[in-house]
Amino acid sequence: MNILYDERLDGELAPTDKAEVLADLQRSAPGLTLLHREEDLRPFECDGLAAYRVLPMLVALPETLEQVETLMKRCRALGVPVVTRGAGTGLSGGALPLEQGVLLVMSRFNRILDVDPDARIARLQPGVRNLAISEAAAPYGLYYAPDPSSQIACSIGGNVAENAGGVHCLKYGLTVHNVMKVEVITIEGERMTLGSEALDAPGLDLLALFTGSEGMLGVVTEITVKLLPKPETAKVLMASFDDVEKAGRAVGDIIAAGIIPGGLEMMDKLAIRAAEDFVKAGYPVEAEAILLCELDGVEADVDDDCATVRAVLEKAGATDIRQARDEAERALFWAGRKNAFPAVGRMSPDYYCMDGTIPRRELPRVLKGIAELSEAYGLRVANVFHAGDGNMHPLILFDANREGELEQAEAFGGKILELCVEAGGSITGEHGVGREKINQMCAQFAPSELTVFHAVKAAFDPGRLLNPGKNIPTLARCAEFGAMHVHNNELPHPELPRF
Amino acid sequence: MNILYDERLDGELAPTDKAEVLADLQRSAPGLTLLHREEDLRPFECDGLAAYRVLPMLVALPETLEQVETLMKRCRALGVPVVTRGAGTGLSGGALPLEQGVLLVMSRFNRILDVDPDARIARLQPGVRNLAISEAAAPYGLYYAPDPSSQIACSIGGNVAENAGGVHCLKYGLTVHNVMKVEVITIEGERMTLGSEALDAPGLDLLALFTGSEGMLGVVTEITVKLLPKPETAKVLMASFDDVEKAGRAVGDIIAAGIIPGGLEMMDKLAIRAAEDFVKAGYPVEAEAILLCELDGVEADVDDDCATVRAVLEKAGATDIRQARDEAERALFWAGRKNAFPAVGRMSPDYYCMDGTIPRRELPRVLKGIAELSEAYGLRVANVFHAGDGNMHPLILFDANREGELEQAEAFGGKILELCVEAGGSITGEHGVGREKINQMCAQFAPSELTVFHAVKAAFDPGRLLNPGKNIPTLARCAEFGAMHVHNNELPHPELPRF
Repeated sequence: MNILYDERLDGELAPTDKAEVLADLQRSAPGLTLLHREEDLRPFECDGLAAYRVLPMLVALPETLEQVETLMKRCRALGVPVVTRGAGTGLSGGALPLEQGVLLVMSRFNRILDVDPDARIARLQPGVRNLAISEAAAPYGLYYAPDPSSQIACSIGGNVAENAGGVHCLKYGLTVHNVMKVEVITIEGERMTLGSEALDAPGLDLLALFTGSEGMLGVVTEITVKLLPKPETAKVLMASFDDVEKAGRAVGDIIAAGIIPGGLEMMDKLAIRAAEDFVKAGYPVEAEAILLCELDGVEADVDDDCATVRAVLEKAGATDIRQARDEAERALFWAGRKNAFPAVGRMSPDYYCMDGTIPRRELPRVLKGIAELSEAYGLRVANVFHAGDGNMHPLILFDANREGELEQAEAFGGKILELCVEAGGSITGEHGVGREKINQMCAQFAPSELTVFHAVKAAFDPGRLLNPGKNIPTLARCAEFGAMHVHNNELPHPELPRF
Repeated sequence: MNILYDERLDGELAPTDKAEVLADLQRSAPGLTLLHREEDLRPFECDGLAAYRVLPMLVALPETLEQVETLMKRCRALGVPVVTRGAGTGLSGGALPLEQGVLLVMSRFNRILDVDPDARIARLQPGVRNLAISEAAAPYGLYYAPDPSSQIACSIGGNVAENAGGVHCLKYGLTVHNVMKVEVITIEGERMTLGSEALDAPGLDLLALFTGSEGMLGVVTEITVKLLPKPETAKVLMASFDDVEKAGRAVGDIIAAGIIPGGLEMMDKLAIRAAEDFVKAGYPVEAEAILLCELDGVEADVDDDCATVRAVLEKAGATDIRQARDEAERALFWAGRKNAFPAVGRMSPDYYCMDGTIPRRELPRVLKGIAELSEAYGLRVANVFHAGDGNMHPLILFDANREGELEQAEAFGGKILELCVEAGGSITGEHGVGREKINQMCAQFAPSELTVFHAVKAAFDPGRLLNPGKNIPTLARCAEFGAMHVHNNELPHPELPRF
């Protein structure tokens, strides 16, 4: 397959003169807020993945579509890369700035343009916070389903860029399943509409392509999302297990029984204890694992499903099953889960949060593999994850002040992701690839597949100016990483599992 | 935006020597079945859209992946276009052969490779019939949801190529929502895997891009689909209306009430009478319109929903509401709907079946517009459609033996599609663009958007050898059609609605 884009690699962007770019943008986009002094740039040096920090050349804070268009056209003309940022809550460094690039911050596009309760859709600017959508829809008994943990702060534009998930995505889908239409501006400064309010759109499905593309294809300027009716009721069951693999198997059993829970979460012993110490959620601290299974819908249905799930859990070997007595206890059960990350953080000077996805049936095997790796690396792991959709968040505990532990944790993390790939899964569940996992993409995809990714990107961005160095590695980078792989992990690139 | 592909246009493919291509393929792919005599080619001259017929240069019927790989590589080397065909049931001429091209028929890849009831997935070769998937899953209480009317005959590979829908797609989604992974072979003869069994896959969403791409990006050689548990029960309500717009409004009201029916279909007076004459379904022949609303799920839930829908229908002005007494009557209600096309066919020497999609809230307005156009053109229309998802199938009745009626019907049909686009909808619901609607794509998309489509296609197929002249029009074609537009419809291209 031919490579159709500029062969320029990450870090090989032509050096640009900051003063010249600033003057050009000030001249061509009057009224556009541009930050350029170091103290003004500092707050933008990283996103939620604070391990990587880079000061951008300039920060642009547009307020109109015309300003975005002009900015894109001028950056294209000047050969200046553009990194788009929403609320900056991403966990994979997708919005990490480039020293030679403009950081395009969309936070001023923060208006809810329309909520149409009859059509059950909302039209939004990209800077609208995820939770604000549900708040605006609440008077109509509606809500927006995808609910990343950062939903108080994260923006819908960033959700589209990362194809964000959440506790409810098992039942209600990822962002891609809840977005109907987006307005975008390309690096050429052209406006495009992808998708439609109708069920299907002819031509190629560029809307799905764009969703999760991590700012590599264009800038989203407006989003139309589906709203769902709020379920009449929600009930949660907590099951204890004396064995983590049994709990893993129970997850598959619940789904195989024809139930699709609103949420199906799993925590292992270390995570349970950390959360219980922190939140006093009433978790069984002697259990090796717990499952939290929420069922939502109409009352009669939910009661039926609770009975079915209870039977499945008993058969799977649960040592104890409790149903939250009331809304207060339901909230408490979830508070433990939602605070599991900071709770684990209290137990260890540092932790490294992984984000891999595997087919549900592989849960028991992968959990066993992680336990073995934990032994081998001498580092503890707390497992907290969206079990229902196979999205794992192992937290590796380490102390960066101890010689070599950071490197050990990173190597351990890499091994976990390889385990996910081997099991037929993927290196990211909901946090995206960004800067963090760009090397693991080499393990996930064959060179011919990466080449197609690049060629598709080039269809939108032939100059490779949009978020270069993120999401899709260059073949040169993979060659380098592949060599590392052979050395460290005895997994030469061509033999890695492909899918 | 730069155009990155060969500038060769439809009909300008280099003429190739049939004998030479045949000899090359016979030499390079031993064992590959190749048809080349006119009498052998004849059965492949059209798909379900029999109005267009072209005899292919050659028909290839591969049985192994290696044969497909070799065929693709040789066609790429020789510059011979490849049109892929499944069961040939498509209604938009997507599998119409090219005189200078090879028709790649995938019917021999017809094995069900695996049904995994625990993971609720099935792995299939592309030639497997849609209904055969549900038959294979039935022993486990599972089924495959998308159900195009042609499901007895159409193949899952063709469903992926066209992103097929069906009566149940309102609730259960289109093909794209029910496919997890596909194996493909590119025009370079390279194998790729798109998607995964995990909920999300990193990188760009090439699986969604591929689904519905009408054979323009590669050949699908294996498909992994989701299976769903069969609903415990299904009940159907039939509501009569004395006004077609009232029925249209009721559709939106049902959805706005928080109900997602398993099926929600509408027929107008002409369609009702035709179906009743043909099937004796017990339809109210005096009604101006009927709605058929099927509710499926667990018993208690379905009863609740039936009560809600009944109340909504009454409020919307239904003159009569009947619930099918038993399974036999339910089947009869649906038999009328499913046979509506042939039933209308009995009333008129010819009919032209349209397939447009509009936002639900636009149903009353578009129905009114169609009625006005029917008056203006002096041609009758029977409206039969998937009302719940706004997918309309107006059937224009005409007599091709009457001077000028065919042209009138085509012009009328074009106007209906324009009406759909104006209403914020699209020119196809589930039948695809293919050859039939390629001109309407010029009305649907702006030149800059079509250019991106072409550039994305070029990422997979830089030589434009895969199904050229279908799905995405060249800008030259649009320029020509745009000129026609100005003349006939007073809608100059740049002012056409975009979305």
